[in-house]
Amino acid sequence: MRVSVPLRQAYKLINHGPTALVSASHGGRENVMAAAWVMALDFDPPKVAAVIAQDTFTRALIDASGSFCLSLPLESQAALTMAVGSTSGRDLDKFERYQIARAPGTAGPAPLIEGCAAWLECRVLPAPEMQARYDLFAAEVLAAWADDSLFYGGEWHFPEGRRTLHHMARGVFFATGPRVEAKAEG
Amino acid sequence: MRVSVPLRQAYKLINHGPTALVSASHGGRENVMAAAWVMALDFDPPKVAAVIAQDTFTRALIDASGSFCLSLPLESQAALTMAVGSTSGRDLDKFERYQIARAPGTAGPAPLIEGCAAWLECRVLPAPEMQARYDLFAAEVLAAWADDSLFYGGEWHFPEGRRTLHHMARGVFFATGPRVEAKAEG
Repeated sequence: MRVSVPLRQAYKLINHGPTALVSASHGGRENVMAAAWVMALDFDPPKVAAVIAQDTFTRALIDASGSFCLSLPLESQAALTMAVGSTSGRDLDKFERYQIARAPGTAGPAPLIEGCAAWLECRVLPAPEMQARYDLFAAEVLAAWADDSLFYGGEWHFPEGRRTLHHMARGVFFATGPRVEAKAEG
Repeated sequence: MRVSVPLRQAYKLINHGPTALVSASHGGRENVMAAAWVMALDFDPPKVAAVIAQDTFTRALIDASGSFCLSLPLESQAALTMAVGSTSGRDLDKFERYQIARAPGTAGPAPLIEGCAAWLECRVLPAPEMQARYDLFAAEVLAAWADDSLFYGGEWHFPEGRRTLHHMARGVFFATGPRVEAKAEG
């Protein structure tokens, strides 16, 4: 079940470096793409950084609406992640073509992709230099959500088969692996 | 054995979102810290983005030298990663205190931390707005290296026990998990 995550814990949802789906909506058009180059940028208020290429349709929707949503796909969504990452919303309606269920955004117009592990609804922060030079966006997280069977007690708990994804290249991902706790050093 | 990675493949070393050690050197002083907020920023020439907090000693060395090195620690280095991430080089010599072996940089002054999975030697790119507002650095990768028992054929191959790390919070990491190949979608 999708439950709200306190904003001060939002960074924990993406601190481990998972690949994300980026969705946006403006003027009755919606789209979703994949992005591996996404990371936390601040704790509280939580911020994220994301690289969104200039030539994507999602970028046009983000530029127009000033907002986007990050949804974190699970292992079962690897093929979907590749599909939305290798086609353009200018050419087809990805939601229809790939039968992607989505829920309406709560803090902005960008939809939440159903079946994911967590969701970060973001508002773009002004940073024209970064955007122009590196396609790099800074955004504040206005609302954070997680599947409460995976994120509870302020931590991720990934069972085999329901783990987040880390893209290496060309459709090859790694699932998030086992927990490693650091012991105090000498 | 540490071998050179072609620069056009350098993004693959960090595309999966691992936690990094950030080292820097200037004027006879060296330091190393941990950073989970590191990601690829461009393919070719390869670039990275990294959040380096204003109040760290490593930041002072980076600001002065215009360069840093990212070393990607393995599971066996989780405690070391926490240790260098929770102490300051202003208070102690971390290399001596934690007996950290390092090799000299080849493309800049920042040392490479021995025993890691890969290394990215980086030169800071001018981006004063990002640095001032978000402690966010853009840098070009001048040289890339990997352990050739882990990265070969242009891909990562992680055996159990020798995987990279993904920090969730407070010393809890996930190892990089099993490979997931996306099948083409309908």
